[in-house]
Amino acid sequence: MTDVADLVGRARTGDRRAVARLISLVEDASPLLREVMAALVAAGPADTYVVGLTGPPGVGKSTSTAALIGAYRRRGVRVGVLAIDPSSPYSGGALLGDRIRMGAHAEDDGVYIRSMAARGHLGGLSWAAPQALRVLAAAGCEVILLETVGVGQSEVEVAGQADTTLVLMAPGMGDGIQAAKAGILEVGDIYVVNKADREGAAQTARELTHMLSLGPGRGEGDWTAPVLKTVASRGDGVEEVLDAISQHRQHLTDSGRLLARRRRRAAGEVEAVTLEGMRRRIGNLRGDRRLEALADRVAAGELDPYAAADALAEQLAT
Amino acid sequence: MTDVADLVGRARTGDRRAVARLISLVEDASPLLREVMAALVAAGPADTYVVGLTGPPGVGKSTSTAALIGAYRRRGVRVGVLAIDPSSPYSGGALLGDRIRMGAHAEDDGVYIRSMAARGHLGGLSWAAPQALRVLAAAGCEVILLETVGVGQSEVEVAGQADTTLVLMAPGMGDGIQAAKAGILEVGDIYVVNKADREGAAQTARELTHMLSLGPGRGEGDWTAPVLKTVASRGDGVEEVLDAISQHRQHLTDSGRLLARRRRRAAGEVEAVTLEGMRRRIGNLRGDRRLEALADRVAAGELDPYAAADALAEQLAT
Repeated sequence: MTDVADLVGRARTGDRRAVARLISLVEDASPLLREVMAALVAAGPADTYVVGLTGPPGVGKSTSTAALIGAYRRRGVRVGVLAIDPSSPYSGGALLGDRIRMGAHAEDDGVYIRSMAARGHLGGLSWAAPQALRVLAAAGCEVILLETVGVGQSEVEVAGQADTTLVLMAPGMGDGIQAAKAGILEVGDIYVVNKADREGAAQTARELTHMLSLGPGRGEGDWTAPVLKTVASRGDGVEEVLDAISQHRQHLTDSGRLLARRRRRAAGEVEAVTLEGMRRRIGNLRGDRRLEALADRVAAGELDPYAAADALAEQLAT
Repeated sequence: MTDVADLVGRARTGDRRAVARLISLVEDASPLLREVMAALVAAGPADTYVVGLTGPPGVGKSTSTAALIGAYRRRGVRVGVLAIDPSSPYSGGALLGDRIRMGAHAEDDGVYIRSMAARGHLGGLSWAAPQALRVLAAAGCEVILLETVGVGQSEVEVAGQADTTLVLMAPGMGDGIQAAKAGILEVGDIYVVNKADREGAAQTARELTHMLSLGPGRGEGDWTAPVLKTVASRGDGVEEVLDAISQHRQHLTDSGRLLARRRRRAAGEVEAVTLEGMRRRIGNLRGDRRLEALADRVAAGELDPYAAADALAEQLAT
């Protein structure tokens, strides 16, 4: 028997095992989640700032994440990392271990690193990520780095979950055309050309800047997404990235857009949870007389499935 | 403006372009589908028998499908083929062309071959396949071969959509253990070891028979799934497969299980359509005052997303 109140209480004190257990409940779509989320709200506000990191494979996302963790820790900021791999069948445990061994932050109580496979959930990232972010926020993470493999849809989803979205690029990634194709130019608040010690970095940055000047960006005209250069493996330029994140945060706060983004995100979350609830309710109907009677008429060719679905929805509502 | 009644009317006469257009409407999840399905029901019953084909990559599914088409045509049966690739981003057109060129049935009015990418639909195969099958049935296909790449979940889904499910294997596919892992032993009504002229065919058939004798099968104890051998590329054993399908059909009909399977399938279809309708309704709520008000309270940390979803569901129902 899982004592949810106890788990949440321990997570609030930064108990790593409690945090891990709670995120596993999110990952497994546990029936206890409802109780967990209520307990988190009841425990009081836990503000955090979510920084999304995305970009094509090979740009150095893990290295950049490690560099950002280090920079935040030097500023005394407690950091959470949620690495989402929408296509991975692995659950958090394994990769978490690897990352902890890899990084210099394994023994640091101010850092919590977690990988999560978002696959298989009905709502995907929009369902799982906000709940995991709530857990990390409750555990006292002041900044959460939300990292994802930048493959198609996931970039857009990460941008939807983050307060500030960093898009990472690397030199020579196909003269910008690839970037435009990937829709990457529409999701970033800050662009970072990593591996800037390599040939072509200046050109990639110039092209990015040029393309950003043409496009509509995130549709918020008074923020010009900066294009920064880093060599994350040796920490070059990372402080400037943190400064840019601070500036963007200030900009969002002053303009009221931070609240607007968070409301939009909350609306998506409520939507996803509602939909999941409906799916469960329909799932429970298997064997229900109302569904069976309608299905029999569909099987007999007397009723089309849409008319049957209308009738079912009506019966469910009464 | 698409004239649905006219399209359905033409499809009923076997007009290939009308059939293609209707299946494209299914594939694109067109808003017209509701009208199409109602028109198909109104046009009267169109009975068909659905034979699922699944199995791991490399067992010769396409060759087997071609051989089965040929055998059915020699018996004067009108045949439809629906090849589903759940992971493919390609739509029907391209592969259809390839298949027609590949096969000997391009000019045969008694054969209709179509590929469909089921990806992206909320209900996946359970949503798209039944509607495409309805179209092929209306076009006069007496037997429909529903072929899918056997990767994990899709095998189970195909079995759920088919009246009789054929599972294809090939010699030397890892002494049965792989088969057991893949859950393949639970979905087949008939097993076929294709490429039976290769070494190890007899052993694979023996192992399959042995493992089937141990397991519960599809839970319908009075049908013993036969294990047949074919060399589809030269037609060997294909007549025996057709006979086994006929026997299984007779068995299902006599025992009342055909109707039971079709009712279960219809229930799944009604479920999927209902869920899709709910999703659309929620989608339409973006910007709705009720959702916004709840989302604001979630964003402010006053309400957890589950409580908000409950409140939303209640408001939607009234």
